[in-house]
Amino acid sequence: MDPLRVTIWNEFVHEQTNAEVRRIYPEGIHGVLAASLRSHPELHVRTATLREPEHGLTQEVLAQTDVLTWWGHAAHGEVEDAVAARVQERVLEGMGLIVLHSGHLSKPFRRLMGTSCHLCWREAGERERVWVINPGHPIAQGIDRFIELENSECYGEPFGIPAPDEQVFISWFEGGEVFRGGNCWVRGSGRIFYFSPGHESYPVYHHPLIQRVIYNAIHWARPQGIKAEVPRHVPVEQAPEKIVPRGLQLHEPGGRLL
Amino acid sequence: MDPLRVTIWNEFVHEQTNAEVRRIYPEGIHGVLAASLRSHPELHVRTATLREPEHGLTQEVLAQTDVLTWWGHAAHGEVEDAVAARVQERVLEGMGLIVLHSGHLSKPFRRLMGTSCHLCWREAGERERVWVINPGHPIAQGIDRFIELENSECYGEPFGIPAPDEQVFISWFEGGEVFRGGNCWVRGSGRIFYFSPGHESYPVYHHPLIQRVIYNAIHWARPQGIKAEVPRHVPVEQAPEKIVPRGLQLHEPGGRLL
Amino acid sequence: MDPLRVTIWNEFVHEQTNAEVRRIYPEGIHGVLAASLRSHPELHVRTATLREPEHGLTQEVLAQTDVLTWWGHAAHGEVEDAVAARVQERVLEGMGLIVLHSGHLSKPFRRLMGTSCHLCWREAGERERVWVINPGHPIAQGIDRFIELENSECYGEPFGIPAPDEQVFISWFEGGEVFRGGNCWVRGSGRIFYFSPGHESYPVYHHPLIQRVIYNAIHWARPQGIKAEVPRHVPVEQAPEKIVPRGLQLHEPGGRLL
Amino acid sequence: MDPLRVTIWNEFVHEQTNAEVRRIYPEGIHGVLAASLRSHPELHVRTATLREPEHGLTQEVLAQTDVLTWWGHAAHGEVEDAVAARVQERVLEGMGLIVLHSGHLSKPFRRLMGTSCHLCWREAGERERVWVINPGHPIAQGIDRFIELENSECYGEPFGIPAPDEQVFISWFEGGEVFRGGNCWVRGSGRIFYFSPGHESYPVYHHPLIQRVIYNAIHWARPQGIKAEVPRHVPVEQAPEKIVPRGLQLHEPGGRLL
Repeated sequence: MDPLRVTIWNEFVHEQTNAEVRRIYPEGIHGVLAASLRSHPELHVRTATLREPEHGLTQEVLAQTDVLTWWGHAAHGEVEDAVAARVQERVLEGMGLIVLHSGHLSKPFRRLMGTSCHLCWREAGERERVWVINPGHPIAQGIDRFIELENSECYGEPFGIPAPDEQVFISWFEGGEVFRGGNCWVRGSGRIFYFSPGHESYPVYHHPLIQRVIYNAIHWARPQGIKAEVPRHVPVEQAPEKIVPRGLQLHEPGGRLL
Repeated sequence: MDPLRVTIWNEFVHEQTNAEVRRIYPEGIHGVLAASLRSHPELHVRTATLREPEHGLTQEVLAQTDVLTWWGHAAHGEVEDAVAARVQERVLEGMGLIVLHSGHLSKPFRRLMGTSCHLCWREAGERERVWVINPGHPIAQGIDRFIELENSECYGEPFGIPAPDEQVFISWFEGGEVFRGGNCWVRGSGRIFYFSPGHESYPVYHHPLIQRVIYNAIHWARPQGIKAEVPRHVPVEQAPEKIVPRGLQLHEPGGRLL
Repeated sequence: MDPLRVTIWNEFVHEQTNAEVRRIYPEGIHGVLAASLRSHPELHVRTATLREPEHGLTQEVLAQTDVLTWWGHAAHGEVEDAVAARVQERVLEGMGLIVLHSGHLSKPFRRLMGTSCHLCWREAGERERVWVINPGHPIAQGIDRFIELENSECYGEPFGIPAPDEQVFISWFEGGEVFRGGNCWVRGSGRIFYFSPGHESYPVYHHPLIQRVIYNAIHWARPQGIKAEVPRHVPVEQAPEKIVPRGLQLHEPGGRLL
Repeated sequence: MDPLRVTIWNEFVHEQTNAEVRRIYPEGIHGVLAASLRSHPELHVRTATLREPEHGLTQEVLAQTDVLTWWGHAAHGEVEDAVAARVQERVLEGMGLIVLHSGHLSKPFRRLMGTSCHLCWREAGERERVWVINPGHPIAQGIDRFIELENSECYGEPFGIPAPDEQVFISWFEGGEVFRGGNCWVRGSGRIFYFSPGHESYPVYHHPLIQRVIYNAIHWARPQGIKAEVPRHVPVEQAPEKIVPRGLQLHEPGGRLL
């Protein structure tokens, strides 16, 4: 299997400011995710967090990343616009992006979706059942009919996203809601997967089946082809068919608009 | 038929700076579009242009607009981010948006698509044939198998857009290219249609069938339902099913994150 | 509003063989649906049932039908293949089709979907909550956040359908399942809506909000444009661009394959 | 790379009845395709043709096939319905299907699409340019901006297919048409790719880039996960949440409809 370079990004705020969250994730959410992924020899895993320079997501780091996972919640606003734009750009070029839980309101995800990405929510530690609705999808491999989480934050519809290109999971909540919690999109040459479980006050990312879904998603999201073509002026003499130019020209021969 | 409030937005630069363009569109591109639409009694048509205060797109104007059409080319960068964000927001609430020709690089369109929106292009006055690929679509009503434009700017693939929700037209070009030139998306509660013909150096918007497509698209894009729900905290006592909260709470009772 | 010709098709078996079902639907399920729809003056409503000649769906009846609704459960196999093919053909030409509840296994629906259309199910009179996931969709107009049915048959994922073109509703069930219960597709020039509530042992079709959804769906599914083009040989002399034929011809000039 | 079991199916009629076609494909179209694929060590390639018993597609052969390619033209009607249904069933279970050129009217493809699959066409040996519109897609790997075929049969829009889940190629024709000639769908657990070039009177399948597309498509279409679940009755005592049955039961405890 080809090596895959994975960068686990984590906001890493609540694990430092809240004792209960720290108890669940003493090394941060990124620590648990990285440890579980490092058991797979084909993955080269690194981590990056908000408070590092450029949030740990320099041009160089992103250029060496095949798939980026993103978790954030309390500090979406602290992510610099330039870094969010850089992530968006890399996705369009082919980098995979896995957005986790409250990352639905992160800057990179909202920029790529173009919509509000809002949802309804309730924090009551209720039961969630993550149903596989697409058993033939690679992200569902190794998952039976559903994953049951005894304590979870409820996310509910309507979820302000563009219609997913593919859906893999829909969640049921004890309190009565449903939620499209496992969705795929392609944007440019990049693949994006949003996966909703993962509130930081419950040990969701310690769950082996949740880890399995993220592992599957990383493989699914790996770059597939070449990057989508950059804008390109095709001079008349390079037209695939021979043509004679007619009419008014508003552009210089090189393509610059007059 | 219900009245529809349409706002025709035009950059209105080349019609003032280039004598040839002014000859084709003495009242501006918006002038020709508005005149053709005003022949339909159910449409209430107004226009707005770049150099007006707030580009003519105040909160009030947008609140009274059911469908907005957008043409721009030379001055996308002059559109204020705040106005582009306002248009995006109104589309998510339900306003229809018709993006014309070089509007593919406009700020509102790129924000809503989340992708580069780039394409290949060539200005040679070559022949374009706009094929109907979806004769059952309301935007194709009244169009036969294709629309032929003797002089057109060539737009070519790959076009950096998300996969359209529906496709209505694909264009053929004399110089050898193809282009997905008539595409529909839904974003939030709003409908978006991109239609590629319309280079300002040819009289494309004087063509009755091009006018017909835009008229059809305005009807298709009219607001359909209520606006997509705003973010919403559902307190435990409002859960559809009775539940007892369990575990750690990271939010105050009113929903504010601690 | 333009008049819409609606044909309500019902298998009409259980209402005659089961006293309890007859008590709920003394005039048949089609009777309740037709009565609710006849309160809308723009609808011209007729009914048809399985045991009529050609199941009441002659070429003539279908030719005069803009939207057909379909309910069946116990006797899918009794529907003649020729009639199922006729319905499919008319949908491709532009007739709308609303498939209700157990109609997911009907011949016309399976022919149009191309998939198994299977699902999981449980008949326990449990609570169902039909969530609006797309408040901007015309089929959701007049429905608040959800419809609650105190007694319903549970349908569960995975549902063997092609990815819907649009989703309007997802259901939550007391027993722990979720289900994509309100889905739209376009096939040829026709629009198809599947709506899952409606087990015959509960008075689901007496519920005003369920009636509202069906009414909305009928309007949404009305024919939009012209029928998709029939197969067509384009002789060389009718090619849009002038070309000179080259190479081997396997067809006669009229297009017949040699 | 995992071994992939590929079955190349060919109608194999014109290569035997027409001397010109036999000159281009002396071993049949399947012969050329099989030879090109056998150069890839990870592929296990076999062939099957119409006139073999059960058209060479016995239950056993299909059970041992990961990806099936299909070429037919003159004798679609000779394919037994039972075999077409068997192919459809296997695709829903996860087998990949690559449908080539005139296979658009084959029974398996039409059953899986649910639509007419008709198109416009012209046999004039004109130039075709197959444009890559999705450079990031795995099926486009190794293809530059387009593939040029000096002689090809023209296929034109409208093409009577459901909206593709993904599009990879759109063709331009010298005579003035465009055609969505490279389309992906998922049905059940199976992946389907339709690729339009391949008229038997031109040596299209000898072209290395056409061979490359088919090779890419075979990898893309390989089975991804488990087969979509078969219909399933969930007895009350197996409901994920504990519930007490209420109301009328129309089914026996085992699930049989009364």
